[in-house]
Amino acid sequence: MNILVQKFGGTSVANLECMKKVREKVLAGLSKGNKVVVVLSARAGETNHLLALASEWSPEPDKAECDALVSTGEQVSISLFSMLLRDTGIRARSLLGWQIPIRTDDDFGNARIRSIDSAALRRYLEEYDVLVVAGFQGCTEDGRITTLGRGGSDTSAVALAAALGSVECEIYTDVDGVYTTDPNICSTARKMDRVAYEEMLEMASMGAKVLHIRSVEFAKKYKVPVRVRSTFSDDPGTLVTQEDSSMEAVLVSGIAYDKDQARVTLHDLPDVPGTAAAVFGPLSEGGVLVDMIVQNTSLDGHTDITFTISRKDLKKTLELMNRVADKFGNVEVVHDLNVAKVSAIGVGMRNHSGVAARAFSALTQEGINILMISTSEIKITILIEEKYVELAVRILHDTFGLDWDIGC
Amino acid sequence: MNILVQKFGGTSVANLECMKKVREKVLAGLSKGNKVVVVLSARAGETNHLLALASEWSPEPDKAECDALVSTGEQVSISLFSMLLRDTGIRARSLLGWQIPIRTDDDFGNARIRSIDSAALRRYLEEYDVLVVAGFQGCTEDGRITTLGRGGSDTSAVALAAALGSVECEIYTDVDGVYTTDPNICSTARKMDRVAYEEMLEMASMGAKVLHIRSVEFAKKYKVPVRVRSTFSDDPGTLVTQEDSSMEAVLVSGIAYDKDQARVTLHDLPDVPGTAAAVFGPLSEGGVLVDMIVQNTSLDGHTDITFTISRKDLKKTLELMNRVADKFGNVEVVHDLNVAKVSAIGVGMRNHSGVAARAFSALTQEGINILMISTSEIKITILIEEKYVELAVRILHDTFGLDWDIGC
Repeated sequence: MNILVQKFGGTSVANLECMKKVREKVLAGLSKGNKVVVVLSARAGETNHLLALASEWSPEPDKAECDALVSTGEQVSISLFSMLLRDTGIRARSLLGWQIPIRTDDDFGNARIRSIDSAALRRYLEEYDVLVVAGFQGCTEDGRITTLGRGGSDTSAVALAAALGSVECEIYTDVDGVYTTDPNICSTARKMDRVAYEEMLEMASMGAKVLHIRSVEFAKKYKVPVRVRSTFSDDPGTLVTQEDSSMEAVLVSGIAYDKDQARVTLHDLPDVPGTAAAVFGPLSEGGVLVDMIVQNTSLDGHTDITFTISRKDLKKTLELMNRVADKFGNVEVVHDLNVAKVSAIGVGMRNHSGVAARAFSALTQEGINILMISTSEIKITILIEEKYVELAVRILHDTFGLDWDIGC
Repeated sequence: MNILVQKFGGTSVANLECMKKVREKVLAGLSKGNKVVVVLSARAGETNHLLALASEWSPEPDKAECDALVSTGEQVSISLFSMLLRDTGIRARSLLGWQIPIRTDDDFGNARIRSIDSAALRRYLEEYDVLVVAGFQGCTEDGRITTLGRGGSDTSAVALAAALGSVECEIYTDVDGVYTTDPNICSTARKMDRVAYEEMLEMASMGAKVLHIRSVEFAKKYKVPVRVRSTFSDDPGTLVTQEDSSMEAVLVSGIAYDKDQARVTLHDLPDVPGTAAAVFGPLSEGGVLVDMIVQNTSLDGHTDITFTISRKDLKKTLELMNRVADKFGNVEVVHDLNVAKVSAIGVGMRNHSGVAARAFSALTQEGINILMISTSEIKITILIEEKYVELAVRILHDTFGLDWDIGC
C-alpha cells in the first residue's frame, strides 16, 4: 500500500473555493496509486476567533477546556472537506485525534505526541481511500483533547507519516518551496530542490516560517521526507530530507536573517566563577530566551558580557540586569535596538574551513561593521546594524554563489 | 451521593450574560448538597449556522460527516461554560458524548441512545462537583460521532438522569412550566404543578413544545422525574412524573390544539378487503405521517375514508391519492385546509365516562360544528373549522374547570 500524507494550512481551507483546490491535490495523489492521508488546519481565522471567545469568557481560560474549545476548528474543516470528497464519489472519512488515536502528554495547549496507532490507520486505509485527519490535536491517555501548540498541524502531518513508515509528507502552503533567502529582499533568491533537515532547522529557528521547527525535528528524527509546495501551483516544491553528498558539496545553502533582535551589554563585570550564572540565571527564570552570547577575554580581572534577545523582552531584561548590576556594583548596563542578525547556513561547512572568513571579508569590504559573531557546525551568524540587513543578505547570497543554479 | 441533572437550551447559553444566569442555577443546585450534571445545547443559532455550511459544501451532505460537524456546537458551549465554572473555583469539567461514552446506534442525524456508562460518570463525580455534558450527541460502538435529532438535548438529559438512577432532571427553558393550555389563547390558563408522563406525551405530540416527545418517552420508561422550569425565574415549574391518585381525580388536565392540519377525503371507495391498505400504503411509503383517520360505515358496498395530515404534505398526498383514485375508478378526492384539531387530555378519563359527551355538547352549544372525532384512553381529539380554534380551546378549558386552582 503506497501512502501519501498531505497537509493543508488555514488559508488552503479558508472557504469552499480553496477546498476545491485542495481536492485537486488529493485527486492528484490518488491518481498516482496512493492512499492519501490529508491533514487539515482550522479555516483561516477560526482558531483566533475561538481563542477570543475564551478570553471573553475567562481572564485566564482553563487550558484543558481551551483545548476542547479550540480543537473544534479542525473538526469543522475535516467534516466539511470529507463531505466534499464523498460528493465526488471518493471513499473518504474524517478522523479526529481521539478517533485514531493520536496520544499526547497532558501539557494542554502545547502537548507532545507520544504515540499514534498506525495499525488502526492502516485498517482504516483498507476501507477508505482518503482519511481526512484533524491537525493540531491529540488526546491524553485518559481521553482528554489536547492541542499541539503553534505549527501543530505540520507536526501532526509529519508524525502521521512517521507512524505509517516514513512515507512522503507534502506540506502545502502559499509559497512554492524553500528559498535560498527571502525573495522580497534578494531578487536572485532561488527555490531549492532539496535541503537537509539540519539546514531547515537552522532556517526555521531564524524565522523562515515555511515549516514549524518542531515538525522538522520530528521529520529528522524519523527520517520522513517532507516536500514543501504550494496549493496554488504545480511546482514540485522543495524536498526536506537527509543530507547527502550533493548537499555536502555546497558550502552554503541559504541565507537567513532576523530583525527581532536587541543587544544588551554588561560592562566591567568581575571575572570570577559564577558571574555568567548570576547574569543568565535570572533571565532564564524570567522566561527570557537569550540568543547570541559573547564574553570578552578578561582584562585586569574584569570582563564584558553581551547577548541578544527578542525585542519584546527588552524591558523585562533591563529590569533584571539592572538588579544584577546593583548587586555587583560599578557595572554598567547598555542596550541597542538597532541591530539584526544574518546567517549563512549549510551542511557543507562541516567539511570546509574558511567559510566564516569569506563571509566577514565580503561584509567588511562593503563597509558593514560586524558587532557580534556566533558560529555552529553548519551556521555562521553575524550581528550587524539593522539598516544593513538587506545589503548583507544580498552580499552573502552573492558571495556563496546561491544565485547560480548548481543543479543539486 | 445526591445527583441533579440540569439541562439548558440554546437561548440559555446564547452568550456570556445568559451563561452567568445558568451558573446561578448550577450554584443553587450545588448549595443543596447535590453533585450536578449540566447538559448544554449549542448556542442559539449555532446548529443552524453549521447546517447552512454543510448545505453550502454539499447538496446532500454525508450524514456521518454532518454529525461530526454539527456536534462542534455543543462542544463550544460546554468548554466555555466549564471555563466559567472553574473561574468561580468550582471543580468542573466538560464531557463530550464519546468521553463518557454515550453509545448510540449508527442512525446518523437521528441516533438513539443504547447505553450510558454510568460507572464512569460516578467516577468523574468523585473527582468533580459539576460535569458539563454536551447534549444532542453520542457515539457509535466504533467511535463515530452521532447526533440525536430534534430535541436531542432533552433526551440526553433524561437519559443521563436515568443512567444515574432516576435522579431528578431539571429542564430549563424560557417558560416557567407546563400550562393547562396556551396562555396566549386563554387568559385563564394555569401553570400545572404536576403532570403525568402520559399527559405530557399527548401534549407534546399535539405541538405543546415545552419538552420533546422522545425525552418524555425516555422519562416515562425509566421513571425519571422531570421538572420543567425557567432559567430566568425562581418558579419551581412543573413536575412531569408518574400518575397518582390526585391526578386521576381530575378529569381533564390540559387542552391542546394543532392548526397544522389538512383534511383529505376519498369518496366512494369499494368496501372490500385491502382498500385501506391501498390508500395508506402509498402514504407510508411516501413518508407522509397520517394523523386522524375515519372510515364511515359501508353504504351499498361503497365507503368514504377521511384522514388528516400536516399541511406541508398536502401536495404530495393529493398526487398519491389521485393515483389511488385512478386505480379504483369513480373515486373522488377532496381536501380542506381550513381545519384544526383541539384535544382534551387527562389520565382521569380512564376511570370516568361521559367526558367526550360533555366536550361535544359544550362545543355544539356554541355553534361549533364537529368534523371528525378521535378518542384514545386519555385523550379526546376533535377536528373543527380552523376559525373556531381559539373559541373551542376557551370553551373546553372552562367546561373542565381548568381555570380553577384545584390544588393538585
